[in-house]
Amino acid sequence: MGVLGGGGSIGSIREKEKQRPARERMEGQSRVLVIGGTGYIGKFIVKASAASGHPTFALVRDTSPSDPAKSQLLHSFTSSGVTLLRGSLEDHESLLGAIKQVDVVISAVGNAQILQQSNIIAAIKEAGNIKRFFPSEFGNDVDRQHAVEPAKSTFALKAQIRRAIEAEGIPHTYVCCSFFAAYFLPNMSQPGLTSPPRDKIVILGDGNPKAVFNKEDDIATYTIKAVDDPRTLNKVLYVKPPANTYSFNELTSLWEKKIGKTLQRIYVPEDQMLKNIEELPFPMNIVVAIAHSVFVKGDQTNFEIEESFGVEASELYPDVKYTTVEQYLDQFV
Amino acid sequence: MGVLGGGGSIGSIREKEKQRPARERMEGQSRVLVIGGTGYIGKFIVKASAASGHPTFALVRDTSPSDPAKSQLLHSFTSSGVTLLRGSLEDHESLLGAIKQVDVVISAVGNAQILQQSNIIAAIKEAGNIKRFFPSEFGNDVDRQHAVEPAKSTFALKAQIRRAIEAEGIPHTYVCCSFFAAYFLPNMSQPGLTSPPRDKIVILGDGNPKAVFNKEDDIATYTIKAVDDPRTLNKVLYVKPPANTYSFNELTSLWEKKIGKTLQRIYVPEDQMLKNIEELPFPMNIVVAIAHSVFVKGDQTNFEIEESFGVEASELYPDVKYTTVEQYLDQFV
Repeated sequence: MGVLGGGGSIGSIREKEKQRPARERMEGQSRVLVIGGTGYIGKFIVKASAASGHPTFALVRDTSPSDPAKSQLLHSFTSSGVTLLRGSLEDHESLLGAIKQVDVVISAVGNAQILQQSNIIAAIKEAGNIKRFFPSEFGNDVDRQHAVEPAKSTFALKAQIRRAIEAEGIPHTYVCCSFFAAYFLPNMSQPGLTSPPRDKIVILGDGNPKAVFNKEDDIATYTIKAVDDPRTLNKVLYVKPPANTYSFNELTSLWEKKIGKTLQRIYVPEDQMLKNIEELPFPMNIVVAIAHSVFVKGDQTNFEIEESFGVEASELYPDVKYTTVEQYLDQFV
Repeated sequence: MGVLGGGGSIGSIREKEKQRPARERMEGQSRVLVIGGTGYIGKFIVKASAASGHPTFALVRDTSPSDPAKSQLLHSFTSSGVTLLRGSLEDHESLLGAIKQVDVVISAVGNAQILQQSNIIAAIKEAGNIKRFFPSEFGNDVDRQHAVEPAKSTFALKAQIRRAIEAEGIPHTYVCCSFFAAYFLPNMSQPGLTSPPRDKIVILGDGNPKAVFNKEDDIATYTIKAVDDPRTLNKVLYVKPPANTYSFNELTSLWEKKIGKTLQRIYVPEDQMLKNIEELPFPMNIVVAIAHSVFVKGDQTNFEIEESFGVEASELYPDVKYTTVEQYLDQFV
């Protein structure tokens, strides 16, 4: 479906696509540009976009990387019809050129590049053709958090980008997907384990606040569903299927039931967690601070989603057959 | 020595200090402002500065925090004679007011606030009185790195701040202290352990590149030594005592000798580490990417320190009795 921008030049749109009248394109599926498409969640988004039939573009620093893993990933993109565009957040012309070719921009840049998304905002303003911008979020709702440092400042950077988008009047959707399944479920936050524990489990806090665990593919699928959906315009899209919402205690009980065994539960009280956060160096301190926000403060579930600011993905798209936590855990039994 | 700025007002300088002639202050120990002084390395720097006799100021968001751990820390600061100044990077007037009261600014802000140090740079330019600025570094030399993402971008933010400091002609010192001892030594990077292993050890890469491990107190002591030292002006201060420089293999042998036991060594080749980096979500991917930079690429030791850009702390200050890795490990035997 797309072409690889070979020989170092920026990949251009297929001639056929160019010849389609603008109106037809506007009514059909939007052209999607993913920035940060080779990153952790970005690669799922690129694949979901291409699979759903959106003309899909990925902005990449290097279209012929020497790293074999990255090279293989880019090859899988082009095989799926994705057009690679060479460029980066630091190269304004490449960014602007890429943005002018599409209708929707999805940023999945990493945590170190959150503020640099101001370059995307500037380019979107200059280009003037973007119908929707998805900044890099894909976590907790940063406007509804009770985190301590260093998570607090990290979340605040995303909030700062939200305010910049809103100040510029750019149509947007913020995807808040809570936990990536792979962040937590494979070892249930027990360091050193590669599958959930079978004798004792360390539970953060009192184990009662509820968190949400979503498989990466499903997060990407919901994100792409939202691209052309007027119901998600200028809203937060929460990915919080009820079947993926568990407290640490409930999750432990679910796992116990699966393995037919009762685990010894060891609780880490909040003040011990706060002490650990103070004493651990970066980036370990941020791991505990995020856990504190989620498992002690309940920041993934401690508010109602109101129509004025948000919508829930599994309600909006009941046709999506997402992987439930219960199904996900089966691989470890 | 200092006063706590009570009742919500910014703490002012002691009257006695004010009355000392400017020249006497310039010839003596500089007044030091620490920004990020309650953070991981910041609190060691505040204490080292106060202990060394520098009039010491800490910029804090809240001088009477409700968090008991933070409250206790601030109390220990004021007990050591530190003056607390209320303010933050986002509040220009507070920042400028604090900077105007001192000679030297040391930033130890966390990783989420690296780029926001541009606010400090702007305030230093406006104030016009700062003799030396130490931006938040305290890791690898970000101008001499071979890291992969996401560590690469994270390091690049610090390099961006260096370029801004240099463009403004602000006198500076960059403290590159390699690893904090507590980052690595307590479990030698074996997840889930709280002391080094006693049966088998997972070694990242081939175990041959050398890394450097420094105790946090010592890093702070060297940083404060550099404050008024013309030899560190506009230079990188590397904290690389030979006695703290070990390869992963050498460190394993040292530990084996201490416990009188040979460990099974399991090596993780580079391509497996790169795969892990691709597949792990933030912030676990950054832990492995930093390890890759240090233990595979050897970024803490793969270059000579040349007089044109850097000096080494243990050579410059041979009187400092630092804790060696060998001594540090004794607590775990």
